[in-house]
Amino acid sequence: MRNIIDLRSDTVTQPTQEMRDAMYYAVVGDDIMGEDPTVRELETLAADIMGKEDGLFFSSGTLANQAAVMTYTQRGEEIILGDTSHIYNLEVGGLSALSQVQPRPMAVPKGIYEIALMEELIQEEGIQRAKTSLICIENTNNLNAGMVVPLENINQVCALGKKHGIPVYLDGARIFNAAVASGVEAKEIVKNVDAVMFALTKGLSAPFGAVLTGRKEFIQKARWMKQRLGGGFRQAGFIAAPGIVALKTMMPQIEKDHKNAQLLGKGLEAIEGLQIDVSRIHTNIVTASVEQLPITIEEFLNRLLEKGIKAKRISKTSFRMVTHLGIEESHLQEVISVVKNIVFQL
Amino acid sequence: MRNIIDLRSDTVTQPTQEMRDAMYYAVVGDDIMGEDPTVRELETLAADIMGKEDGLFFSSGTLANQAAVMTYTQRGEEIILGDTSHIYNLEVGGLSALSQVQPRPMAVPKGIYEIALMEELIQEEGIQRAKTSLICIENTNNLNAGMVVPLENINQVCALGKKHGIPVYLDGARIFNAAVASGVEAKEIVKNVDAVMFALTKGLSAPFGAVLTGRKEFIQKARWMKQRLGGGFRQAGFIAAPGIVALKTMMPQIEKDHKNAQLLGKGLEAIEGLQIDVSRIHTNIVTASVEQLPITIEEFLNRLLEKGIKAKRISKTSFRMVTHLGIEESHLQEVISVVKNIVFQL
Amino acid sequence: MRNIIDLRSDTVTQPTQEMRDAMYYAVVGDDIMGEDPTVRELETLAADIMGKEDGLFFSSGTLANQAAVMTYTQRGEEIILGDTSHIYNLEVGGLSALSQVQPRPMAVPKGIYEIALMEELIQEEGIQRAKTSLICIENTNNLNAGMVVPLENINQVCALGKKHGIPVYLDGARIFNAAVASGVEAKEIVKNVDAVMFALTKGLSAPFGAVLTGRKEFIQKARWMKQRLGGGFRQAGFIAAPGIVALKTMMPQIEKDHKNAQLLGKGLEAIEGLQIDVSRIHTNIVTASVEQLPITIEEFLNRLLEKGIKAKRISKTSFRMVTHLGIEESHLQEVISVVKNIVFQL
Amino acid sequence: MRNIIDLRSDTVTQPTQEMRDAMYYAVVGDDIMGEDPTVRELETLAADIMGKEDGLFFSSGTLANQAAVMTYTQRGEEIILGDTSHIYNLEVGGLSALSQVQPRPMAVPKGIYEIALMEELIQEEGIQRAKTSLICIENTNNLNAGMVVPLENINQVCALGKKHGIPVYLDGARIFNAAVASGVEAKEIVKNVDAVMFALTKGLSAPFGAVLTGRKEFIQKARWMKQRLGGGFRQAGFIAAPGIVALKTMMPQIEKDHKNAQLLGKGLEAIEGLQIDVSRIHTNIVTASVEQLPITIEEFLNRLLEKGIKAKRISKTSFRMVTHLGIEESHLQEVISVVKNIVFQL
Repeated sequence: MRNIIDLRSDTVTQPTQEMRDAMYYAVVGDDIMGEDPTVRELETLAADIMGKEDGLFFSSGTLANQAAVMTYTQRGEEIILGDTSHIYNLEVGGLSALSQVQPRPMAVPKGIYEIALMEELIQEEGIQRAKTSLICIENTNNLNAGMVVPLENINQVCALGKKHGIPVYLDGARIFNAAVASGVEAKEIVKNVDAVMFALTKGLSAPFGAVLTGRKEFIQKARWMKQRLGGGFRQAGFIAAPGIVALKTMMPQIEKDHKNAQLLGKGLEAIEGLQIDVSRIHTNIVTASVEQLPITIEEFLNRLLEKGIKAKRISKTSFRMVTHLGIEESHLQEVISVVKNIVFQL
Repeated sequence: MRNIIDLRSDTVTQPTQEMRDAMYYAVVGDDIMGEDPTVRELETLAADIMGKEDGLFFSSGTLANQAAVMTYTQRGEEIILGDTSHIYNLEVGGLSALSQVQPRPMAVPKGIYEIALMEELIQEEGIQRAKTSLICIENTNNLNAGMVVPLENINQVCALGKKHGIPVYLDGARIFNAAVASGVEAKEIVKNVDAVMFALTKGLSAPFGAVLTGRKEFIQKARWMKQRLGGGFRQAGFIAAPGIVALKTMMPQIEKDHKNAQLLGKGLEAIEGLQIDVSRIHTNIVTASVEQLPITIEEFLNRLLEKGIKAKRISKTSFRMVTHLGIEESHLQEVISVVKNIVFQL
Repeated sequence: MRNIIDLRSDTVTQPTQEMRDAMYYAVVGDDIMGEDPTVRELETLAADIMGKEDGLFFSSGTLANQAAVMTYTQRGEEIILGDTSHIYNLEVGGLSALSQVQPRPMAVPKGIYEIALMEELIQEEGIQRAKTSLICIENTNNLNAGMVVPLENINQVCALGKKHGIPVYLDGARIFNAAVASGVEAKEIVKNVDAVMFALTKGLSAPFGAVLTGRKEFIQKARWMKQRLGGGFRQAGFIAAPGIVALKTMMPQIEKDHKNAQLLGKGLEAIEGLQIDVSRIHTNIVTASVEQLPITIEEFLNRLLEKGIKAKRISKTSFRMVTHLGIEESHLQEVISVVKNIVFQL
Repeated sequence: MRNIIDLRSDTVTQPTQEMRDAMYYAVVGDDIMGEDPTVRELETLAADIMGKEDGLFFSSGTLANQAAVMTYTQRGEEIILGDTSHIYNLEVGGLSALSQVQPRPMAVPKGIYEIALMEELIQEEGIQRAKTSLICIENTNNLNAGMVVPLENINQVCALGKKHGIPVYLDGARIFNAAVASGVEAKEIVKNVDAVMFALTKGLSAPFGAVLTGRKEFIQKARWMKQRLGGGFRQAGFIAAPGIVALKTMMPQIEKDHKNAQLLGKGLEAIEGLQIDVSRIHTNIVTASVEQLPITIEEFLNRLLEKGIKAKRISKTSFRMVTHLGIEESHLQEVISVVKNIVFQL
């Protein structure tokens, strides 16, 4: 496995030594009985960082997302969301299977929610229409090349939600990437949303986990939904411990990842034939296309792999490369050079 | 109530005398026990008209739609459908509430399904994706001004479904309008779809009811889903009887409705300021907008009502008028004249 | 079909001439738009008879039951019900499929709900338990030989519900049988329940339909659930009309049915070898067993059928016979005589 | 927290030093991408121990249970289970909320499933009945004082399932307690069941986790359900690592726990006034009642707590004490002595 440069996702990171240490020495208790001090510490820390009343630890972001929707909605209601959102596309139909809600997707070009369109999608309770009971937004947009939703746009969505009495939930799996890219604190970004989830994996490099934050009453109800979904643990402090380290130590890494993504993007941009729009690289995700090259995406990725580089196919002609802990400038120089060679030899 | 010209919908029709007679003399039995001869007659007749193996009588089109989806899918799967489709917009979130399926809507401009886009929306079973297990199309498109889906387009959808092993279900609530407008038999239109539902109300003027037709095994399973949804009746023959009359006698009315809609459309087109696109009038639905007139849609509809004319608001500036049994040419002349006066006096 | 004496169920009745007339002359409108005067008349009449604020017409009792549960509960909650109740046993798993509620059944020997046991089954919201949000009782108990739940017992259940803040719903499909058997008005029986459904079929002999009654706000919400379940109709007045006749004219028939059931029960009791407990015949349902006779239940029913008599197998050794409109004393004398002969010849 | 003797549950155990070490040194990868070697090792080991084709790691037993049911059933079907089973009582209504299945509970006195009764509860697909598609048994029975289901009884259940084509699922959260108590290998106990889940916590003392084992195809499908339920992890090896240690090292502890439970039971039995049936102590759970003593259960538990002993209230008059890692003979002598004093002073 050594020597592989794995750019498929920022989920493949290995935890830092400090995280392993934190797990090793964790003080734990039965979390379902509410007796795990490490979990409680993480939940409080997370709530504080997000400026929310309370937090709830989850073993995965998908679980946190689904529990949030289950807490906010009743069967047969509608939720508005981006058509490329994770919660709609990459959670195995959980919205309808687990919460029996009907998604009302809207396109989010460049990660911006068009407010007038969103308002048109809102439905009142009525004899034939299903009532809209939740708006789900995502920042950064994973399937949208990690683009950042502008702060102003988030606040507009929240104002719309408030106007119609509909809560706004933010899937902030990569909220710290958004914060770093926008130059504002996460707390500022989520100020007006009703609840937000963020992942401890990805840029933060913890091996697992996510925290949902929001109002006390909401978190209390979400705790039951978490248990229903099988998300309750006994000595969960072991899983939570590296998350605390992540929140305290990994912010600088995110900044580094972004710089590296720019470096990678610019390097690839200089390779003739490869299509890439550097202005879309807001955070740590770089996407490019081989559409204008005489090679299939599969073959292209195979040739990369032969050189020890992993990237992820994201459409019939394009791929993505994600920077993260363990990816250094030197790796990226190597990647650029390998790609250059592959393209040159076509 | 006399003297009102009700153009809101073709669902407001009163049954013909022959239908009342059919109800009165109906021979009935316990349909849940499978002993109602009139229901059986209607089911067989419907299957025959559609060229399908078997039929199943439902008391409403919504019920037939939901039972069909429940029969074809399992929880957590995806279904592809038009973003203006009845099943997605006007059935109180039933898809997710009752069948726990996740809708994947696509725009259907002018009632044509773009095949390449549809294929992109199809998802294979996988670790994060929900499998697509049904394609739902609608002909004519109710919320799309009753426009007809071209026969070729339907067949393309069916070919796509076949290629991917995904059944195609047609909500043909107004399939006979489509047949009349296309000049082909309904049987021809639905030849390649796996199952089709059509309404006995609307253009056919029966007071209630719809029939679902398809393969024997599918209908057998749908019968259980119908019962689960509370759709079983005892002496259902009374409800089925006018449907038989409708199928046997009302086709000429549909032709008349279409002619009347053209007449109405052309009359309105001649009124300056009113916006209307006559090329969109494929069947019996006429839509127009007051956007360029100095009047709100609400006020416009109020002034119509004062003159004994009912039309239906369908957006912030537009309305629809639907022709049906009981609406004669003379009524439409009156409508055109009233609208002309209202607009003239602005 | 002539000459058959059909005792399988009181659902096989044919409507009276007056009911056919009522259908024929019914004044109807679009009920989904709330414009059908006949439906409204039935709903108001039903609410009045039950002493409730409002009523909602359904095309079947199953539909009314499921809509009521869907209105009172949220996904994942528990409902307490009798283990032989219709809603739990004969509605195709609708409780879990449509409303995602978890049934907590209890035995109801002789149709009496043991209050202490019921209280033990109630669950509070908690980290591992699903909250009890509804108590469903049934009177008369269909699968319990049509036995009547004592008025006092109903009131105890309601007091328990009130104590715990849990609504009590009564499936009163055969409530008028209970009323006649108890010698009190239906209104008195349902005085303390939050909502009650009763069927227009069965003893009342209408060809279809049921009415749900309860508080205004509950009925309003139930109306949306009805529509979601596909229970909305257009000119539903035709279906409602015989129900009005049923409520106004059929009460005496129920009394007659009960007398006939006693007559049948006593006649069968006198046949040696046949097992029957006449004290369990509270209403119009007679159950008996061939367990101690040298004949299988299937063969026994076949021999009855050869003589033009239909009864229903309800267990491995027992059958039921139900009296209803069209079953006269003379029919029952014939039935007793035929059974006597069959048993005699064994 | 020091000096507390916590007998509430075997879920409160702290992991062994070897388990902490295993976590610390775990080799991990992205498990959702199928790249975590430690998880794979645990899954293979578990399948081997159970004699099944494949295994699937879960972060909790509740999650494994719910995913198993979701894999075996379709919406609206019935499952038969014990009325005191964990899956029915302590999983927040997940069966109906997540899988939309209708539970058909049966009493399991002394942990034995009555086969004739179970067969009566099986339902065929039909017009009004929901089809039975799964039988769920539990061994040992948690809410049944940890009693062991006899091997022969399990095999009878499996034979019944086979006869009717219904799979049998075993919630074996404490299967190793059953194995030790029965003197047979776990593999022998689960030989005929289609799938089995066991917990790594409880007697095995790992901080979290459970493994589901069964046929390859079943496990593959369950993997998707796990992901839908939010049970997918990234570097899950950290969570799996202590489980491997648990399986390899903790069996002797279970034997010790059982011996300790006997010791505790006999000690409590000797205290006059306390009610306890030692013959019900099959494994590591001891239950007793203060019903015949002049003290409430709450007050009794309070007095225990004052002396540093935690036990769990399980009914209005009874409590349980569970032995586990960290509970030594000396602790139990102290517990017996404290209880003796409390009772003596009444």
